[in-house]
Amino acid sequence: MKMQLKEIPGSIVAPQGFLASGIFCDIKRLGTGKGSNKGKKRDLALILSEVPATVAGMFTTSQVCAAPVKISMPRASKARAQAIVINSGNANACTGSQGIRDAKAMTEIVAKLFRLPAEDILVASTGRIGVTLPMANVKRGIQDAAGLLNTFPENAQHAAEAIMTSDTRPKAVAVEFKLGGKTVRIGGICKGAGMIQPGMSATGARPAAVPSNKFQGLHATMLCFITTDAAIESKTLKAALNEAVANSFNRITVDGDMSTNDTVIVLANGMAGNTTVTSNRRADLLAFQSALNHVCLELAKLIVRDGEGVTRFVTVRVNGAKSFADADAAARAVANSSLVKTSWFGGDPNWGRILGALGYSPAHIVEEKIDVAYSAPGSTKLLYALKKGQPTKTSFDVLCKMVAQKEFDLHINLNLGKSAAVMYASDLTEEYVDFNKGDVSDPSSLGG
Amino acid sequence: MKMQLKEIPGSIVAPQGFLASGIFCDIKRLGTGKGSNKGKKRDLALILSEVPATVAGMFTTSQVCAAPVKISMPRASKARAQAIVINSGNANACTGSQGIRDAKAMTEIVAKLFRLPAEDILVASTGRIGVTLPMANVKRGIQDAAGLLNTFPENAQHAAEAIMTSDTRPKAVAVEFKLGGKTVRIGGICKGAGMIQPGMSATGARPAAVPSNKFQGLHATMLCFITTDAAIESKTLKAALNEAVANSFNRITVDGDMSTNDTVIVLANGMAGNTTVTSNRRADLLAFQSALNHVCLELAKLIVRDGEGVTRFVTVRVNGAKSFADADAAARAVANSSLVKTSWFGGDPNWGRILGALGYSPAHIVEEKIDVAYSAPGSTKLLYALKKGQPTKTSFDVLCKMVAQKEFDLHINLNLGKSAAVMYASDLTEEYVDFNKGDVSDPSSLGG
Repeated sequence: MKMQLKEIPGSIVAPQGFLASGIFCDIKRLGTGKGSNKGKKRDLALILSEVPATVAGMFTTSQVCAAPVKISMPRASKARAQAIVINSGNANACTGSQGIRDAKAMTEIVAKLFRLPAEDILVASTGRIGVTLPMANVKRGIQDAAGLLNTFPENAQHAAEAIMTSDTRPKAVAVEFKLGGKTVRIGGICKGAGMIQPGMSATGARPAAVPSNKFQGLHATMLCFITTDAAIESKTLKAALNEAVANSFNRITVDGDMSTNDTVIVLANGMAGNTTVTSNRRADLLAFQSALNHVCLELAKLIVRDGEGVTRFVTVRVNGAKSFADADAAARAVANSSLVKTSWFGGDPNWGRILGALGYSPAHIVEEKIDVAYSAPGSTKLLYALKKGQPTKTSFDVLCKMVAQKEFDLHINLNLGKSAAVMYASDLTEEYVDFNKGDVSDPSSLGG
Repeated sequence: MKMQLKEIPGSIVAPQGFLASGIFCDIKRLGTGKGSNKGKKRDLALILSEVPATVAGMFTTSQVCAAPVKISMPRASKARAQAIVINSGNANACTGSQGIRDAKAMTEIVAKLFRLPAEDILVASTGRIGVTLPMANVKRGIQDAAGLLNTFPENAQHAAEAIMTSDTRPKAVAVEFKLGGKTVRIGGICKGAGMIQPGMSATGARPAAVPSNKFQGLHATMLCFITTDAAIESKTLKAALNEAVANSFNRITVDGDMSTNDTVIVLANGMAGNTTVTSNRRADLLAFQSALNHVCLELAKLIVRDGEGVTRFVTVRVNGAKSFADADAAARAVANSSLVKTSWFGGDPNWGRILGALGYSPAHIVEEKIDVAYSAPGSTKLLYALKKGQPTKTSFDVLCKMVAQKEFDLHINLNLGKSAAVMYASDLTEEYVDFNKGDVSDPSSLGG
């Protein structure tokens, strides 16, 4: 089916019936009791649907998971929710029972203001680990944010800014498409720049396709909030989000480190008036799924492109694997190798390191069968560096020119089977190290 | 049993009956056809026993393994060998059938010069991947090295220099001890600074304790050559090397990347005249094992301390795990986390990132039970940052002072069982990135 998908402005307030706001309430400074707040950056966001919405969520599969994840996960497994409250500057992770009480309290403050059940409010946090929230500020902040809720595009912009930590820019996207004659919209905002290799599931249990290692998934603080005015059945929305995340956020890596707070939440309020999408309405489901996939993938790519110190955006395409698990393992091994990532930073088409990473990955490979090629993003015009494990005659200078580009595709064909996997990866730079070594003279600058 | 172990000079020529040399034969420059050779650094080493020696070897478990590994592995599985020839500047990896012929030829040149069976000569290489060896130079180099073979300490020093790549200094150690009244010596040299997280076995098959991921092992170019005048049965030597490597080289990490060329070879020529060590002679075996363990661990630590751009040497001690596999996985997750390693570089006692890494590791953990502490190297005086998952009252400044030291121990108690594991790890620095991004204007500078 050919989709008519139009990108539109407005992100999370583009769909009908959604309001947003983002304000500053001084969470970071008070959270550590030290340091300065540079420029009073927004640090609390609120998203509200005018009517109860169908909800779905995906969360970190880390065994050390933050209090807001513990509160939101069961609420996202229900049929309905209506609002999301998010803070940056403090992850509310490793904060014990006080952290749980604080996360719950955040939802209760919102619930009281809008006369909603607290169970219908979800919460997410990002920032420093191990520090309890300055709840007086958070409470005042939620009240301020509630007062400013609106449907103006700048409101969505403020919310996107308020969830940022080490991000250099807000990340937002929205699309419009037709569903049974009705105009439907999906909008989303996200954040994330380091601690990025998500491996999320709806229950915290690790899905088989995303096991617990460097080669096969799992790692980030990324947050993403999606709104849509589509009418869609709860079970169908949950399955659709699962598929969209599997092909977007769970396929990116900046540094291979998974966070305690990774969260994706979608609210679907049905105000577009379409006939409710269910798994039985194949055409409608396909249209919705394509649009949701697009929103998630665009947002996921924005995270990699804005990764800490990143200078390269590399799409690692593994083909010809014996199984998806093998393709996935091979792609992750290459995408997470410190030596491969530093060579990208240096603009060095070092296929030796790529073979090295494939060699130690758990994927089944045969050195003498591997092809390695480069191309412009999405292009099918491949420049082969290696064919059947042997260097080609492609000149080193030509390969260097390709790897000198800000964005390129790396094609690896294992020539052993028919399975494929893609990873969206960044390079590893001195700026990443400089950023993450932190500044111990200012503990508030230290990310979790 | 209390061991009387004395460190002595001379490394690989300290034991009786061993000769060594290290020369320059221009392997790197010609190998790539471009670039300059700075200061004519030695690049070929030869080690010879006057008499046939018992041999044991451990090799990379990468699926992409270099030609010299393919040649040496079966030869190390035999009872006897007599010489080792090693080159730096070119890994002879991903070089196809030509690479196999070249590796074999290197042993044949040595064999011819000393009228030995080629089967008794082992070979190892390190350097750039994917370039065939300049065999005319290699041949002349072996002839030169053969002519210079001697037992002088400077010969061992030259050999140690000749195997270096990105190492900033040669690495050597030797010990002397008593075995049934006889004086026995063990000496060793090694190299390695990047692509360091070895996971070696004698057969290339991955041992159960060293599976294929970031948390559980596997990765480096490190080479190590050990000589001893002890008389020891072949099977016993192979088991002893296995144990020594399991507790030394297989427990270090610089960047979590495993190499195609990792090799440890030991030659035991029996010239000390001790009664042959066998598994039945428990006291003798214990004494030999302790000495071999010491040599391997000291050499392994030298590799981490000389790691590319390294400013910290951190001993990660995990205790209280349910199983060794859990302890090992937890230690490797922490030791390989980019975020933990950059925080060490910054002198930041960031236990949030440590918990984050434990959270995504496959080790079974319970956040509320974890203790995290720091100490001076080997000290039992622990500074707790975290007890039962909660921050302690230890001041941030005191913790910072500890992590500002060049060497410290990180203690993690999972409080779930009785198993323990140690990893010797480095930090991740801007210099590591700068070094490994390479210089594409000089391809000969690019490490494999």
